[in-house]
Amino acid sequence: MASEFDLIARYFTRTAPTGLLGVGDDCALFPVPPGEQVATSTDLLLEGRHFFPDVDPKSLGHKALAVNLSDLAAMGARPIGCVLGLALPRLDEPWLAAFADGFHALAAVHGCPLIGGDTTRSAHDLAISVTVFGAVPANAALRRDGARAGDDIWVSGELGAADVAYRLLDGQYPADPERLAATRGALEWPEPQVPLGLALRGIAHAAIDISDGLLQDLGHILAASRVGAVLHEDRMPAAAALAGLPAQALRRAVLGGGDVYQLCFTAPAGRRDAVLAAARSAGARVTRVGGIVAREPAQDAMPAATRAGDTSAPAGAPRLVVLDATGQPLTQLPAGFDHFPGA
Amino acid sequence: MASEFDLIARYFTRTAPTGLLGVGDDCALFPVPPGEQVATSTDLLLEGRHFFPDVDPKSLGHKALAVNLSDLAAMGARPIGCVLGLALPRLDEPWLAAFADGFHALAAVHGCPLIGGDTTRSAHDLAISVTVFGAVPANAALRRDGARAGDDIWVSGELGAADVAYRLLDGQYPADPERLAATRGALEWPEPQVPLGLALRGIAHAAIDISDGLLQDLGHILAASRVGAVLHEDRMPAAAALAGLPAQALRRAVLGGGDVYQLCFTAPAGRRDAVLAAARSAGARVTRVGGIVAREPAQDAMPAATRAGDTSAPAGAPRLVVLDATGQPLTQLPAGFDHFPGA
Repeated sequence: MASEFDLIARYFTRTAPTGLLGVGDDCALFPVPPGEQVATSTDLLLEGRHFFPDVDPKSLGHKALAVNLSDLAAMGARPIGCVLGLALPRLDEPWLAAFADGFHALAAVHGCPLIGGDTTRSAHDLAISVTVFGAVPANAALRRDGARAGDDIWVSGELGAADVAYRLLDGQYPADPERLAATRGALEWPEPQVPLGLALRGIAHAAIDISDGLLQDLGHILAASRVGAVLHEDRMPAAAALAGLPAQALRRAVLGGGDVYQLCFTAPAGRRDAVLAAARSAGARVTRVGGIVAREPAQDAMPAATRAGDTSAPAGAPRLVVLDATGQPLTQLPAGFDHFPGA
Repeated sequence: MASEFDLIARYFTRTAPTGLLGVGDDCALFPVPPGEQVATSTDLLLEGRHFFPDVDPKSLGHKALAVNLSDLAAMGARPIGCVLGLALPRLDEPWLAAFADGFHALAAVHGCPLIGGDTTRSAHDLAISVTVFGAVPANAALRRDGARAGDDIWVSGELGAADVAYRLLDGQYPADPERLAATRGALEWPEPQVPLGLALRGIAHAAIDISDGLLQDLGHILAASRVGAVLHEDRMPAAAALAGLPAQALRRAVLGGGDVYQLCFTAPAGRRDAVLAAARSAGARVTRVGGIVAREPAQDAMPAATRAGDTSAPAGAPRLVVLDATGQPLTQLPAGFDHFPGA
């Protein structure tokens, strides 16, 4: 007879680092360095919505934490720890063991131990909530509202592979085992860019992680910073595994594809060397894909279809223009991801 | 067309207090007073498991936050803020508005503003995850492992009403509108004992909040503190609305009933006046219901059926004895709550 408490103890208790009170009291406790603030982010992941029911549980444990660490990365925060809520439709110990392995392995890489949690039984679906905590010196956080006209726009890593893997697994694209093998890692094992976020403190003006697609997420920076942007499609770091895709699918994957968990950030054009040095120190690849411009650079000259980013933006919202290889603005942009598309 | 982002903005964005970066960036940010630690707790609540599908959404918003604030109360932590994850099977704006009202109203009472969140669509059930943050001076937290032989055992508020309301609503008891009216508030509008937890700093040796039943939760204190306990059934602060229940139902409600969100705590017998003064200052009622004894006071003399608390306790676990009105130990105790009873 395994009780809920056994389960927690067996798979989710690790020896907490000094100063942290881990799983096993009403609250977990952790100290914060003097002069630093706490950065926190939470995600609720659901079977059938954010992952396939038959997903490898080890990769799911990895990804559940990775998407939250990616938010810390986008703030330039150093991970402190995390808490986990798990609602399980059944008690499947091999599944739990693999999930815990994937979770703890990534936690160890980034110094983000599990310090508390809640497990419960669900009626239907598996649900996973993760909340992460990090620390960042006051006023050093990379926010969304700091982009300025004249900034370069940068993207880390590669774009598009996760979108293609998702559509292959979902049956939207015809079966292509070779392409699936080349793209699946990007979907199931995203690598949060924590070292890059830390290295960009004091250099980047604004940052966000790409979870819903480059255009949509950059749109949040533009809205918060009240600026516009011009992107160059031919500078995008498309994943090599996308070669040979139809042009429309390629564009959708690169500009609109979600689940990327790379950083999009802006920095002054005068700091290009500093950006490249930061990326080198973090072991990250970064690509300059466009620039920030004053708000609504050519509002009247652009067709409405070039509006993107926050789909709920009111009239007069910041403008995002994507130029194709010939320098012409795209007249139709991939839509962003919306959890309530029919609403 | 309301997008997910509209929803968040409309119902869950409030002006964050100074120093807090609220909903709308990759992470929320908050400062922590020098010398204090962060206390955090997370809960994942599911439709059909933790609440009825037709529950009043305003009370659900209240309770989703209340159960987490109760964990801060049990640590003696002052609330700082919270984050919310919501998975909704459909977009029901009146429901959302009422849920948000209940949530924000309790947040305002306890100075625990919503500073971040995640909304998503679920395939079947409503799921709610809440994570709260509080602050407590280093070494002042009320933990589970501080109980000592000779301590009194105290309980705040009343016991049993939430259990009876739950069983009435669930159809386990015959319909009794009068008793339901008298008990339902305890189930749906629990009041977290945050002021009492703060007032008990420096007085209580150990504390826990009663979520799974007095015996089960006190069992966690006993296990963590490696002590035993003797409780007096006739001292229990049973809710007045329980009058007239069959003896077995009454006992089950008072000793085993969950969803109480009152505090169970221990304090030295020499600090009774201080406990009562702390309770007065917090506007709380407290009742002395028993005492802590050295571990396994009479291991061989007690029948196995008197073991309670952590049901997974190994042989030689701390002993919990409940004496009835005649001073005889109960030979059968209500079982604690286990989310995986069939496992």
